[in-house]
Amino acid sequence: MTKKIAIIGASGYTGAELIRLISSHPGMEIAALAANSKAGQTMDQVFPFLRHLDLPQLVTWEQIDFTQIDLCFCALPHKTSQEVISQLPGDMKIVDLSADFRLRDPQAYKKWYGNDHAAVEMQKEAVYGLTEFYRDEIKGARLVAGTGCNAATGQFSLRPLISAGVIGLDDIILDMKCAVSGAGRSLKENLLHAELSEGYNAYAVGGTHRHQGEFDQEFSLLAGRPVQIQFTPHLLPVNRGILSTGYVSGDAQAVHDTFAKAYADEPFIQVLPFGQTPSTHDVRGSNFVHIGVTGDRIQGRAIVVTALDNLCKGSSGQALQNANLMLGLGETEGLMMAPLFP
Amino acid sequence: MTKKIAIIGASGYTGAELIRLISSHPGMEIAALAANSKAGQTMDQVFPFLRHLDLPQLVTWEQIDFTQIDLCFCALPHKTSQEVISQLPGDMKIVDLSADFRLRDPQAYKKWYGNDHAAVEMQKEAVYGLTEFYRDEIKGARLVAGTGCNAATGQFSLRPLISAGVIGLDDIILDMKCAVSGAGRSLKENLLHAELSEGYNAYAVGGTHRHQGEFDQEFSLLAGRPVQIQFTPHLLPVNRGILSTGYVSGDAQAVHDTFAKAYADEPFIQVLPFGQTPSTHDVRGSNFVHIGVTGDRIQGRAIVVTALDNLCKGSSGQALQNANLMLGLGETEGLMMAPLFP
Amino acid sequence: MTKKIAIIGASGYTGAELIRLISSHPGMEIAALAANSKAGQTMDQVFPFLRHLDLPQLVTWEQIDFTQIDLCFCALPHKTSQEVISQLPGDMKIVDLSADFRLRDPQAYKKWYGNDHAAVEMQKEAVYGLTEFYRDEIKGARLVAGTGCNAATGQFSLRPLISAGVIGLDDIILDMKCAVSGAGRSLKENLLHAELSEGYNAYAVGGTHRHQGEFDQEFSLLAGRPVQIQFTPHLLPVNRGILSTGYVSGDAQAVHDTFAKAYADEPFIQVLPFGQTPSTHDVRGSNFVHIGVTGDRIQGRAIVVTALDNLCKGSSGQALQNANLMLGLGETEGLMMAPLFP
Amino acid sequence: MTKKIAIIGASGYTGAELIRLISSHPGMEIAALAANSKAGQTMDQVFPFLRHLDLPQLVTWEQIDFTQIDLCFCALPHKTSQEVISQLPGDMKIVDLSADFRLRDPQAYKKWYGNDHAAVEMQKEAVYGLTEFYRDEIKGARLVAGTGCNAATGQFSLRPLISAGVIGLDDIILDMKCAVSGAGRSLKENLLHAELSEGYNAYAVGGTHRHQGEFDQEFSLLAGRPVQIQFTPHLLPVNRGILSTGYVSGDAQAVHDTFAKAYADEPFIQVLPFGQTPSTHDVRGSNFVHIGVTGDRIQGRAIVVTALDNLCKGSSGQALQNANLMLGLGETEGLMMAPLFP
Repeated sequence: MTKKIAIIGASGYTGAELIRLISSHPGMEIAALAANSKAGQTMDQVFPFLRHLDLPQLVTWEQIDFTQIDLCFCALPHKTSQEVISQLPGDMKIVDLSADFRLRDPQAYKKWYGNDHAAVEMQKEAVYGLTEFYRDEIKGARLVAGTGCNAATGQFSLRPLISAGVIGLDDIILDMKCAVSGAGRSLKENLLHAELSEGYNAYAVGGTHRHQGEFDQEFSLLAGRPVQIQFTPHLLPVNRGILSTGYVSGDAQAVHDTFAKAYADEPFIQVLPFGQTPSTHDVRGSNFVHIGVTGDRIQGRAIVVTALDNLCKGSSGQALQNANLMLGLGETEGLMMAPLFP
Repeated sequence: MTKKIAIIGASGYTGAELIRLISSHPGMEIAALAANSKAGQTMDQVFPFLRHLDLPQLVTWEQIDFTQIDLCFCALPHKTSQEVISQLPGDMKIVDLSADFRLRDPQAYKKWYGNDHAAVEMQKEAVYGLTEFYRDEIKGARLVAGTGCNAATGQFSLRPLISAGVIGLDDIILDMKCAVSGAGRSLKENLLHAELSEGYNAYAVGGTHRHQGEFDQEFSLLAGRPVQIQFTPHLLPVNRGILSTGYVSGDAQAVHDTFAKAYADEPFIQVLPFGQTPSTHDVRGSNFVHIGVTGDRIQGRAIVVTALDNLCKGSSGQALQNANLMLGLGETEGLMMAPLFP
Repeated sequence: MTKKIAIIGASGYTGAELIRLISSHPGMEIAALAANSKAGQTMDQVFPFLRHLDLPQLVTWEQIDFTQIDLCFCALPHKTSQEVISQLPGDMKIVDLSADFRLRDPQAYKKWYGNDHAAVEMQKEAVYGLTEFYRDEIKGARLVAGTGCNAATGQFSLRPLISAGVIGLDDIILDMKCAVSGAGRSLKENLLHAELSEGYNAYAVGGTHRHQGEFDQEFSLLAGRPVQIQFTPHLLPVNRGILSTGYVSGDAQAVHDTFAKAYADEPFIQVLPFGQTPSTHDVRGSNFVHIGVTGDRIQGRAIVVTALDNLCKGSSGQALQNANLMLGLGETEGLMMAPLFP
Repeated sequence: MTKKIAIIGASGYTGAELIRLISSHPGMEIAALAANSKAGQTMDQVFPFLRHLDLPQLVTWEQIDFTQIDLCFCALPHKTSQEVISQLPGDMKIVDLSADFRLRDPQAYKKWYGNDHAAVEMQKEAVYGLTEFYRDEIKGARLVAGTGCNAATGQFSLRPLISAGVIGLDDIILDMKCAVSGAGRSLKENLLHAELSEGYNAYAVGGTHRHQGEFDQEFSLLAGRPVQIQFTPHLLPVNRGILSTGYVSGDAQAVHDTFAKAYADEPFIQVLPFGQTPSTHDVRGSNFVHIGVTGDRIQGRAIVVTALDNLCKGSSGQALQNANLMLGLGETEGLMMAPLFP
């Protein structure tokens, strides 16, 4: 039977991406769309590219009848998200795409986000939504916290290596490049076409980006000791895509073998032949991850390059993958479409 | 039962777009892929974005066992296409994406393409593949000739208006803007990123573009008298999308009413509310067409703006829509995915 | 002796472009920079690309000592501009880049801009700043009103033809494509990179764009009778450049001859050989205008394609050209730099 | 007296950039332009953006009368360059923009470029053209070898630090991102707009990029011991600009202080305030270099981000700066134009 879906925060890019994906999902139906600032509008006014779909009109989230909903996606900004989610029915299945439930430790949350958490109990309940590594917990979860797009990319690049002990833990560097849609539909000068296109820059340099909190939590847990990596995000003049170039110490061939083994049965993760590296162009609009490994002329160094689509696998696609599991549907349903190229 | 599909010319953009679409089609299976210049390679070498698919290796078209094939797409350059198609089995269902069978008159073909046609009989047999207007003929056709991408855009903008007699026939202007993928994967200086991006220019100015031949043929047939329009193509620094801005004489409201009526039951054609005009961004990667109409401050003038994706609805999507009809499948199967935005 | 220059509105794109140009001008020196919303900041905070220059700190325009200034550029939004300019010293030489003094008729101003003009006397005094056609008046002017960027492009395309009587006046169409910087540094959703890049659309369709007011005024004056053209602007996913594709009735060769003669001695206007058309890529960052003419297969129709840089020749370069004349400097000083390609 | 300049290889991007720059140089005049494959054409056919200039027609380099030439720029591909330069008059002042004379050691040359050097004696004579560090030698040089664009960016990021001994030498990583014009005007599939725009990838991963040879040579010389760095280039979907993100061990404040001191008197190098990092957008079209330094949350780590325009400061601007010195002209003449923004 078709599952009824609500999306709160439907006027942003991740909300729109959810609608795009679900519109081709055989087992889901969009029953309610909320965006408090645009309540009363139709979706084709907010996103004309969805004009061909027969979608419910935008309402406020308070107007949704949740008794009719099987699962609710929450695509709100962080801080707002915890406030809203804590008011939803206690048995509502929720996939949150914000940063609010990614960190399990209230202190860590406050350190990276600046405010006290308003729903500490739910913070503990939430399951971290990186599907490939939390699959079993997600199946039984009520509240799943979607991974940050940079954080997901970095974890696909490093988790199997840390688990297998094939790399050093004290000199890991991730040089990451993210598309502008990662910043959302917000009106900021640096996101204007005239300021961004034909340019390129780093930001949040020196370990200040909030997704670092996720790296700290997850990598330390995996390693059984504190792990801190260097992580520098850059802003790419493209709309979709993250590429992470990872510098690690370890044997490159062992790194590649570890990936090949760890990801052998993953439907969305493609490990490239040794020595090849991926392009964001080849995953755009899809839920696939491409990972490549090379050695370096310097002995004992390996380079791991990972590409994914920040809006899809890095956010809404991952969220849908989690929802499939939570609803007992096939994990890959609605997610196997090929990337768009060119 | 799943239909077995062959694609000849699988190493170009329209071939790749066909594979992208068919990979999500429930009733088709790719059984053979040919590209003579790259025979022996795997598709993930030629197009890494297709890496997740289990596809047959590239062969020469002569190596295909056509007895196993239900329908063959031919995505070769014009002239080559007629040579190959004339050697295929005489009962093979074929959708040709080239220009070779679009013009019915051998003289017109020679005028616009410069060479004598090598398969004049098949030229007569071929059905013109603009699905919305040749649906019944296509259902029974063996050989369908896909419309040119500019030609399709212009015909969606004008055919109902000419049929209904609501516009003048002697002062029609189509100012068209086409994405670079319309020129294919050819190595030309003007298609380099450094030459194209951040720039904009007209080309084939003055009525010399070959798609003009299709306009002449179709509009004259519709009007029952010779019709010549002015048509200026421009090269857009984007990868996908055509926008046609049409200037016609006639009552704008009548123009809009005519579209609303003509396209009321079309699954892929969206007529915007009067006064709104479309963006190519809103159809990218999809088979949808958005059409908008406005009046002008000058009485008796109307402006028709039409947007579609040149690779999808303008070429491979249209081809698949035709194949669905030829194979007795649902016309919209494999084609209802939403556009990619942003 | 070096002329002392003030710029009011220095935190927008046209203000920044003025600084870029003047920084290489041998006869000018920037003495004051005002931007009321950013007063107190340094220019390298507002525009890091100007970091290498030793520029005055931003102040409010009220803080400028105009007794030390030889000429003031005003790069404010329309409406604000007239309010500020009417409070400047009565003998101050001013080049206004806004729309406020382009229309001579207060009724026309109100029709296109919605508000009553606050400085009607100055409106009458102002000289229209399209240098090539108002050179003598500009030399003696105190207040010059810079032409709109679309309006300039269209006039370069049509003025000599209307003056020479070689084209029909009742069926002129300008299909224009303008870069995003023409919309300024304003925070609007449709100017975000994610909304604009890889897309393309028309706007202000149907004769509603305000630069139409300038076309009406100037073409009617030239023709000695009312002239209304059709003009459709489109938004290009590039940062600089306007391309106008003009459709006129007339003999194409006569059109070309008229341009060749009219622009023979113009230092900034390049008429291409007959049959060639320009690209915006070839004028980017410069004060040059490229004009091309072709015929059409339809007898008696000509196509005029014109390219210029909207921020330079379409706005700040034109303003500097006018300032040179007003200050008795060489008209081309500081303006002969080559375009940037690629 | 105006110096007479010849450019061999005038039909590529670096040749065109030289013409752009020299066209505004008060002390130079272009006397001859050679491009053997396009000899007989005019420059406005090859580069329409130079249409406004009165330039000599393209000839073969053999046709140039070098007795009339004060200095010759050679903008040919490597290998071709050494063959041509070895046939030029022995007293001709030459700035070579190719890779042919950058490496002093014939073995190193063969290792990185694959062929034996055809002019070993000249290889020894050549001065390495990184102006800021070889100024005195360049003044007296006959043959100067322009630095590679990536190599220049990396050296601006590291030379003062290695000289001052403020960073570790065994764990240096440069993650570099380069615009597509760095690959020249060559017809390669991966340089097409449709393949490159909206994408992003690494290349020559693992220490295989040829500019690595320059890093080895120069850093080892500076340090007085072998130094090997990790260097990963990436291809940016923009036309101009390189950004290097450097990861070093050392005190970040000491790193910043070292730059501030080393570059205090350099006219083209701007060291940003501590904690700020640059954008390629802010140097585009100019000869300026922006360098920023931040610390990291990990003690003892510093991040150095450097931006320059690969075609200008990374190639043709640097070449002109060197030519100025070789001809006894002011070092900054013709090079102080502001960047183009937006």
